[in-house]
Amino acid sequence: MCGTDSANGANGHVQPAATNGNANFRSNPYQPVGDFLSNVDKFKIIESTLREGEQFANAYFDTETKIKILAPALDAFGVDYIELTSPAASEQSRKDCEAICKLGLKAKILTHVRCDMRDAMLAVDTGVDGLDVVIGTSSFLREHSHGKDMAYIEKTAIEVIEYIKSKGLEVRFSSEDSFRSDLVDLLSLYRAVDKVGVNRVGIADTVGCASPRQVYDLVRTLRGVVSCDIETHFHNDTGCSIANAFCALEAGATHIDTSVLGIGERNGITPLGGLLARMVVTAPDYVKSKYKLHMLKEIEDMVAEAVQVNTPFNNPITGFCAFTHKAGIHAKAILNNPSTYEILNPADFGLTRYVHFASRLTGWNAVKTRVGQLGLTMTDDQVKEVTAKIKTLADVRPIAIDDADSIIRSFHLGLAENTDVAQTNGDAAPVPAVVA
Amino acid sequence: MCGTDSANGANGHVQPAATNGNANFRSNPYQPVGDFLSNVDKFKIIESTLREGEQFANAYFDTETKIKILAPALDAFGVDYIELTSPAASEQSRKDCEAICKLGLKAKILTHVRCDMRDAMLAVDTGVDGLDVVIGTSSFLREHSHGKDMAYIEKTAIEVIEYIKSKGLEVRFSSEDSFRSDLVDLLSLYRAVDKVGVNRVGIADTVGCASPRQVYDLVRTLRGVVSCDIETHFHNDTGCSIANAFCALEAGATHIDTSVLGIGERNGITPLGGLLARMVVTAPDYVKSKYKLHMLKEIEDMVAEAVQVNTPFNNPITGFCAFTHKAGIHAKAILNNPSTYEILNPADFGLTRYVHFASRLTGWNAVKTRVGQLGLTMTDDQVKEVTAKIKTLADVRPIAIDDADSIIRSFHLGLAENTDVAQTNGDAAPVPAVVA
Repeated sequence: MCGTDSANGANGHVQPAATNGNANFRSNPYQPVGDFLSNVDKFKIIESTLREGEQFANAYFDTETKIKILAPALDAFGVDYIELTSPAASEQSRKDCEAICKLGLKAKILTHVRCDMRDAMLAVDTGVDGLDVVIGTSSFLREHSHGKDMAYIEKTAIEVIEYIKSKGLEVRFSSEDSFRSDLVDLLSLYRAVDKVGVNRVGIADTVGCASPRQVYDLVRTLRGVVSCDIETHFHNDTGCSIANAFCALEAGATHIDTSVLGIGERNGITPLGGLLARMVVTAPDYVKSKYKLHMLKEIEDMVAEAVQVNTPFNNPITGFCAFTHKAGIHAKAILNNPSTYEILNPADFGLTRYVHFASRLTGWNAVKTRVGQLGLTMTDDQVKEVTAKIKTLADVRPIAIDDADSIIRSFHLGLAENTDVAQTNGDAAPVPAVVA
Repeated sequence: MCGTDSANGANGHVQPAATNGNANFRSNPYQPVGDFLSNVDKFKIIESTLREGEQFANAYFDTETKIKILAPALDAFGVDYIELTSPAASEQSRKDCEAICKLGLKAKILTHVRCDMRDAMLAVDTGVDGLDVVIGTSSFLREHSHGKDMAYIEKTAIEVIEYIKSKGLEVRFSSEDSFRSDLVDLLSLYRAVDKVGVNRVGIADTVGCASPRQVYDLVRTLRGVVSCDIETHFHNDTGCSIANAFCALEAGATHIDTSVLGIGERNGITPLGGLLARMVVTAPDYVKSKYKLHMLKEIEDMVAEAVQVNTPFNNPITGFCAFTHKAGIHAKAILNNPSTYEILNPADFGLTRYVHFASRLTGWNAVKTRVGQLGLTMTDDQVKEVTAKIKTLADVRPIAIDDADSIIRSFHLGLAENTDVAQTNGDAAPVPAVVA
C-alpha cells in the first residue's frame, strides 16, 4: 500500500470502508520497514525564495515585498529557515538582510555566500543566524568558474568555517554541482569540514541532472562519512526535484531547500508546495502539525504576483485542476469515497474537490449527484437517460455546467409533465416540477 | 558524474574542455554499471494525450483537432503508440477512433477500455492495432467502483485477453491503483495473464501516490514474475511522475505512458516533454535519434491552445526561463562553457539560451559579454566599473536590457570623450565613440 489517506485515521494509513474479509489489506510490502536512515517524518525546510528565487529570470523583490510580505508569510507558514541573497551581491541586498534579521521571526535567517573570507565577514555583520557557504567542486566549475584546486578549496573552507563558528553562528558548507564532482574528492572534503565542526554539509544538484536512485546512493554514502546534518538542493531541469528531495530524506538527509513555486535559476528548484504534497502523503501527522498548509495558496499567489507568472495549471495541490475529477468511472468512485482517486485531501489545504460531469466522458453516477445538487429527484434509469443526452451534446461541442444543468432541468420538466412517472427502482419519489 | 552533456561526444559522456590532469574525472560512481535490468536507452512511449488527456478538466478535442492536428503531429514526433479514448465513452469517440485508424500513421493505435467483453468488442471493430485493458484491483476500487473480487477479475481478464488475441490484436492488461493493491494478488493476476499470452502488463499509479524507490521495487519484482513487456502509468499529484517513470525504466519497464504537457485527470501524468528532458540526459543517442525534439515546443503549443492553458513558466525545456541564467557566478561560467550550468542543450530542441545581465545579481563577466555584443571595447576594470553602475540602478528598480544597455553606452561614451583612457590590463584598444 502506498502512502496514506489524509482524510483518514491518525495512524496515517488508509482504511477501506469495509475490509471485505481481506486480512492482508494493511500489509505494506512496498515501503521500507523500520528504516532507521529515513528522515521523511522529521525533515526541515530551508526556504530559499529570497535567495534562489531571486535568481529566477522574472524576480525582482523590492525591500517592502521582502520585509513586509514574503519573509513574515514564510515564517507564519512554519518554515525552519529563510535563506537570503548574499549581502555581497549588492548594497541593497546587504541592507535587506539586516532588516529581515531585525524582524524577530521564529525562522532562522541564513544568507548564502561564496566560500570567501570577505563575503563571510560581510555576512556575519548583518546579524544572520547562520551562513550557507558554497563552492563549486566539479571539474567544470573548477575549470570554468573559480579555477581553484581541491587542496585550495579545503584550506579555504576550513578557514571560513572556523571564522563563522568563532562568531557563534551556524554554518553549512556545500559543494556546487555535487553530482558531477569526483566522489572521492567530495567525501574527503566533507569529512574534513565535518571534523572542524560544520553544522551541515550540502549536496547540490546545481544543473538538475541527478536521478532519484543516484541521490539515494550519494546521500546514503555521505551519511556514513559525516556526523553533521545533510542539506540537499535540487534543480528541476529534468523534472525530478521533488522526487530527488524525497529520496534524499529516505537516505538520511535532514534539510531540504525549497522555493515558492520552485522559482530559481533556469526553471528552478524543489517547490515548497510540491514537496509538501509529497511529504503529507508520506508523513501526514508531521507535515500537518508543523506547517500551516491552509496558507500555501495565499503564499503562492503572493509570489506569482511578485514575479509576474501564473501558477502552472498543473501545479501540485493549487493547480486549478488538482482536485477535479472527470472520467465517468473516476467520478462514480470519488462520489462513493474520495480516497479512491485522491491521495491528498483538498480540505487540508483549505481547498475543495470538483467532480466534472459536463463532458462526454461523464458517467451517470456523476450526473445523479448533480441531479441531487439541483434538488431534483429521478430514478436511476431516468438519470441514465439524461446522461445519454448530455453525452450526445458534449460530443458536438464543449459544454459548460449551465448547459448540462439545462438539459437535466428540461428533461426533468418533461418527466413532471408526465403524470405516469416510471419508477423502475422503486426509490424515486413523485417528481416536483422545477422551472430552469 | 551524473548524466551527459547533450552538446558533447557520441559516447554520451561529458568531456571537460581540459582535464586538469584529473584522471579520475570520467569515473561515474553514481550510475549502475552494466545494469542488465535497465531500459533507459530502449524504452517506448505510449502517448495518451488523446485518452488520458481527454480526462483533463479543460480538454475538449473536436474531431478535426484530433484527426488533422494532434494525431499526425504526435506521429511525426516519433511516439511509438497513440492511445485513444474508449469507443464505449460516446458515439463520437468511436467514430474518431475509426477515423484515426484510417490515417495510416506509423505509430500503432491503441484504445483504452474497461475489462469488459462488450467494450472490447466495440473497440476491436474500430480497426485499432491494440487494446489497453484496465481494471481496478485495489480494495478501494473493488469496494467503491466495480465491486468485483480477484477471482472474478482474473476470469474476466483472461476471457477478454483471449478474445482480443483471437482477433489478432495487441493487448495490454493493467491494474488500476496498483500501488494500493495487494502485492500478492497483483503478482498472481499478472502471472495468470502473462501465461495466456498478454503482450504487456501495466502498472498504474492512478492516484499519484508512488515514490521512486517504491516504483523501482515493484517493477523489479514484477520483472521476475512475467516474461511480457511492462507498461507504466504515473499520475503527478505528488510531483514524482517523471522520476517514477525513470525509475520504472531502470527496473525493467519497457513502455511509459505520457501526455503532452502532462494533461489528464486532476493534475495529470508524466509529461512527454519532461520525460524526454530526463531521458535525453541519460540516453542522448537513443532519444535524439528516435524523437523529433525540435517539434516539442510546437506540439506543446498546439495542445496548450486546444485546452486553453498556458505552458507552465517552469515547464521542463520549453518553460520561458528553462535556459535563462541570471546569477553572476552562473553567467560567468556559462559564457566560458555552457556545460557548467546546463545539462540540456537548448539547440537540441531548436531553442536558445539567454544570459541575464540586467539585474543586481549580475557579474562583470556577463556585462563584459554584453559590451562585446554591443560592439564596444573596455578594459576589465572599466567593465567592473559599469557593472557596479548597473547593480546600483537594479537595486532601486527592476531594469530591462535597454536600461542596462543605456548605462553601458553612456559610460562608454564618457570613456571615449576622455582621451586618456585607462588601459589597466593592456588588452583594451582605443575606444571608438558610440552613440546610444
